[in-house]
Amino acid sequence: MILVADNVQITNPMIQQAIEERDPEPIQSLVKQCQKAGAEAIDVNSGPLTREPEKKMTFLVKAVQSVTDLPILIDTVNPRAMAAGLRTSRSRVIINGFSLEPAKIEHILPLASEFGVDIIGYLLYPDSRVPANASERLEIAIDLYRAVLQSGLQPEKLIIDPIIAPLLWDNGTLQAREVLDTIRQLPDLLGFNVRTIAGLSNLTTGKGETQKKRLVEQTYLPMLAAAGLDMCLLNVFHSETIKTAKACKSLLHDNIFAWE
Amino acid sequence: MILVADNVQITNPMIQQAIEERDPEPIQSLVKQCQKAGAEAIDVNSGPLTREPEKKMTFLVKAVQSVTDLPILIDTVNPRAMAAGLRTSRSRVIINGFSLEPAKIEHILPLASEFGVDIIGYLLYPDSRVPANASERLEIAIDLYRAVLQSGLQPEKLIIDPIIAPLLWDNGTLQAREVLDTIRQLPDLLGFNVRTIAGLSNLTTGKGETQKKRLVEQTYLPMLAAAGLDMCLLNVFHSETIKTAKACKSLLHDNIFAWE
Repeated sequence: MILVADNVQITNPMIQQAIEERDPEPIQSLVKQCQKAGAEAIDVNSGPLTREPEKKMTFLVKAVQSVTDLPILIDTVNPRAMAAGLRTSRSRVIINGFSLEPAKIEHILPLASEFGVDIIGYLLYPDSRVPANASERLEIAIDLYRAVLQSGLQPEKLIIDPIIAPLLWDNGTLQAREVLDTIRQLPDLLGFNVRTIAGLSNLTTGKGETQKKRLVEQTYLPMLAAAGLDMCLLNVFHSETIKTAKACKSLLHDNIFAWE
Repeated sequence: MILVADNVQITNPMIQQAIEERDPEPIQSLVKQCQKAGAEAIDVNSGPLTREPEKKMTFLVKAVQSVTDLPILIDTVNPRAMAAGLRTSRSRVIINGFSLEPAKIEHILPLASEFGVDIIGYLLYPDSRVPANASERLEIAIDLYRAVLQSGLQPEKLIIDPIIAPLLWDNGTLQAREVLDTIRQLPDLLGFNVRTIAGLSNLTTGKGETQKKRLVEQTYLPMLAAAGLDMCLLNVFHSETIKTAKACKSLLHDNIFAWE
């Protein structure tokens, strides 16, 4: 399981300001901290970047890649920003992402073929509703897969995000289990070892005591890992969760175990 | 997932001495602590009790049940001790357990019908070897199931222990995953919702740093829970593991989630 930092995001006012002022330092500092904390890839979540999307994304990707060679995920709904990021990136890059939403099928998905990169597909309805259970998710996965084929992209470039829902939703615990089932069933359904990614912090969205949220995060992560999750998007500064993730790796990989 | 304390065991010199001296106090004290720590059942592991098995087991069960109404698991290979424990118990009791070992099929398994109680069957070869993978475990499960039917016991009385192996074994991580697969596959294989139990502390048997062992325990437990494990035998004084177990319950049960 590859640990992807979700820390570099526009909702962090420090990042927003750095982008506005074209000041790479705060971004560089954050990215270095993420890598030190155990990040194996960096999600670059710029938001929609409605003004000057190309310039801002180019700045952002360059700032990140001035201090790390880790793969990056470009996380924006803006196709112009996305294209600029893909053009700029000098290390491995993943599009994060598309869904059945027509605008995304039309404008984001084709970029994957154009740049020959992996793309994350969200198991969401075209109107962005979260499916109610595993079987709805699997139907959407088939639709995503078809869209990928139609776009001329190799299906192996698709990485599926089953969409973790907040536990605080009325059906939150059911959703948590259905996501696990979805991850387990996807390879059989699509007939190849499709990769999966999920955003762990969605689980604990909403009000709640920090310590309890962390415990729930640390508890759900091994369930995801054992279900076969390939990449986990998470706050890499949650050090206990990172320890748990590393323990998942030593448990689930084929190396001879040692208490290092 | 029901949490079963593995703390009351003869390898604890204090328990051994209490049995020898017929002094209930240390046992009562330990059992009360287990219940306070979150135990929902108590495994009473007396060892073989070669001398005075009936008297000692009777004393032990009475000592435990003088302070708790929790279900108990009687954990001995000695059929005379087992029978004495089953006769003595005044709360719910489970036989822990039998395997394909001929002596156990002959002398332990019939006690389940005789006393009308649940019995744990270990997925071990007749010579007590641990199977190498899930498919070997499932074959043994079928043999155990047949033995249960032949003994005249209702199959729903069978609880299966897939046998967690030490991670330090050469194939330790493989075994850890095969146990998860086994737990997931058993209900389909046997055609009913067969219950399962596993001994978590087996995983970390052998040399190793305590803190790392606990982390691995806390990481594997959610994997077991998500695979569908019904009962977990563990050291209930590992408070972080108990917290994780409780988080597993809130994640995997159907209640509306709340950060209590």
